[in-house]
Amino acid sequence: MEKPYVIGIDMGGTNTAFGIVDARGNVIAKSAIRTNNPDINAYVKELKEECDKLIESVGGIEKIKGIGAGCPNGNHYTGNIEFAPNLPWRGVVPFAKMLAEAFGVPASITNDANAAAVGEMTYGVAKGMKNFIMITLGTGVGSGIVIDGKIVYGHDGFAGELGHTRIVRNNGRKCGCGREGCLETYTSATGVARTAREILEIGDRKSSLRNIELKSITSKDVYDAAIEGDEVALEVFDFTGKILGDALADFVAFSAPEAIILFGGLAKSGDLIMKPVVENMEKNLLNIWQGKVKVLFSTLKDADAAVLGASALAWEL
Amino acid sequence: MEKPYVIGIDMGGTNTAFGIVDARGNVIAKSAIRTNNPDINAYVKELKEECDKLIESVGGIEKIKGIGAGCPNGNHYTGNIEFAPNLPWRGVVPFAKMLAEAFGVPASITNDANAAAVGEMTYGVAKGMKNFIMITLGTGVGSGIVIDGKIVYGHDGFAGELGHTRIVRNNGRKCGCGREGCLETYTSATGVARTAREILEIGDRKSSLRNIELKSITSKDVYDAAIEGDEVALEVFDFTGKILGDALADFVAFSAPEAIILFGGLAKSGDLIMKPVVENMEKNLLNIWQGKVKVLFSTLKDADAAVLGASALAWEL
Repeated sequence: MEKPYVIGIDMGGTNTAFGIVDARGNVIAKSAIRTNNPDINAYVKELKEECDKLIESVGGIEKIKGIGAGCPNGNHYTGNIEFAPNLPWRGVVPFAKMLAEAFGVPASITNDANAAAVGEMTYGVAKGMKNFIMITLGTGVGSGIVIDGKIVYGHDGFAGELGHTRIVRNNGRKCGCGREGCLETYTSATGVARTAREILEIGDRKSSLRNIELKSITSKDVYDAAIEGDEVALEVFDFTGKILGDALADFVAFSAPEAIILFGGLAKSGDLIMKPVVENMEKNLLNIWQGKVKVLFSTLKDADAAVLGASALAWEL
Repeated sequence: MEKPYVIGIDMGGTNTAFGIVDARGNVIAKSAIRTNNPDINAYVKELKEECDKLIESVGGIEKIKGIGAGCPNGNHYTGNIEFAPNLPWRGVVPFAKMLAEAFGVPASITNDANAAAVGEMTYGVAKGMKNFIMITLGTGVGSGIVIDGKIVYGHDGFAGELGHTRIVRNNGRKCGCGREGCLETYTSATGVARTAREILEIGDRKSSLRNIELKSITSKDVYDAAIEGDEVALEVFDFTGKILGDALADFVAFSAPEAIILFGGLAKSGDLIMKPVVENMEKNLLNIWQGKVKVLFSTLKDADAAVLGASALAWEL
């Protein structure tokens, strides 16, 4: 019997989006529920009920090969969500097992960034690539590392925390992880806003960003100002790109990827971010890699990217 | 027909050591030639003639499964030695092919650090480990990264240049690679000597190292002084360990290894280096890895380690 579809689940701290996906990466049907039910069993039950409506619309569970889910702190090896600070459930949740039992098809989970990498490899710009690094630039900075065509999970399933490599070792910014100078504190959306605030606070340079209350400046505000040619905003992007480019040069020394793929909000800033990233990466690369490592933007359709990424896991089940 | 032996070749800038190795990692017979013949064909001929004597002693080429060679700038994918600055041959040398043709058995090459990692996995402390990082602390700093039981070669065969990740981004030491602040400039044997010279030059602290001409201080001198309790020498080890520990914490964030294995001259300094390395790695690890990543010394017998490492490649042919 042919099983032409997979289910992708993108679990976020607020919402859980899910969809039915075909082998070409078309999202056939999609929906979402809130992630806020404090009872994990009730949450899974609700997820199942909502999914069932989509499943019926494509011909029933017989058409579904499996389920892939991208979850905060999701461990691919164990299938558990482990101590996720931004989810309503404490401790260890055996989410893959719960999904498989509820739906009666195989299920697999991983974290969001790894799901994005699998998605890119299955449906996106990394199709056919065996060695690449996906950097997700969102509220935080995540990464999915692919070597020899496979996601790197490492000894414990948690490999690829490149957002928490220290890029500024002295006087670095305080990070949510408790340490200082992590890449995430500079090149996430929140990092971009933080850089803008720092520049505005230190001097008195003219900037349209001064029309916004300092505390409430977002990376979107910085982007809008940069597009209008605002010099402070442009400097924010240059600085962000410099930090990211520096970091990428070191990542290349680790796994010698064919490409680095940028994904997430900041990756939508086009040349504003790409130019300084490439310039600084090239300047800092060991000579054997200069001019050889592509930096690309993700080509997964924005609204569906996370669901697509998660769904791609299920093809390997 | 049974083929119980492999040949391991360790090509250095000065000498080329080689030996016949059994499956348990015993070096049955060994010898060496100079690496200085400017004619690569003549060099291979001499290598073959000297090897043949050993091969005869174990029962002829029929007993040899293959040849593994660790070579500076050796590319495992292509089998070529590519633009090695410290070897007498210019450009690209198809060394694996030349070996296979000369000996009539399969041959494979890689760089020294990767060979060490394969050796450790085959015969040493990493036996049974699927995910570890080998750091070679010699004249330079090299690395061999193992993920899912395989050496990481990356897109082009040159992955694992962790000695050239920048650990000091501002005012870092000038590196032989042309950049600044590379790990190698601090934690290699030459880096250790450089640190000692810097401390001695800056102040006037008492140290037995002042009995040696500043320019000619070696890492061995620093070790000897540290063993005697010399405070400057002890500080050199603390500083070196701090830099290395910092770097290791970032490497863990990449591939989440079960262990990091230290190999080479500096790894013989025991607790002098191990203590500050572990202390600083732990301090800088993301919380999910604290207390979980082993730091170990290589257990390959010193004199034979490089030949053993290279030979291990040949079991996979």
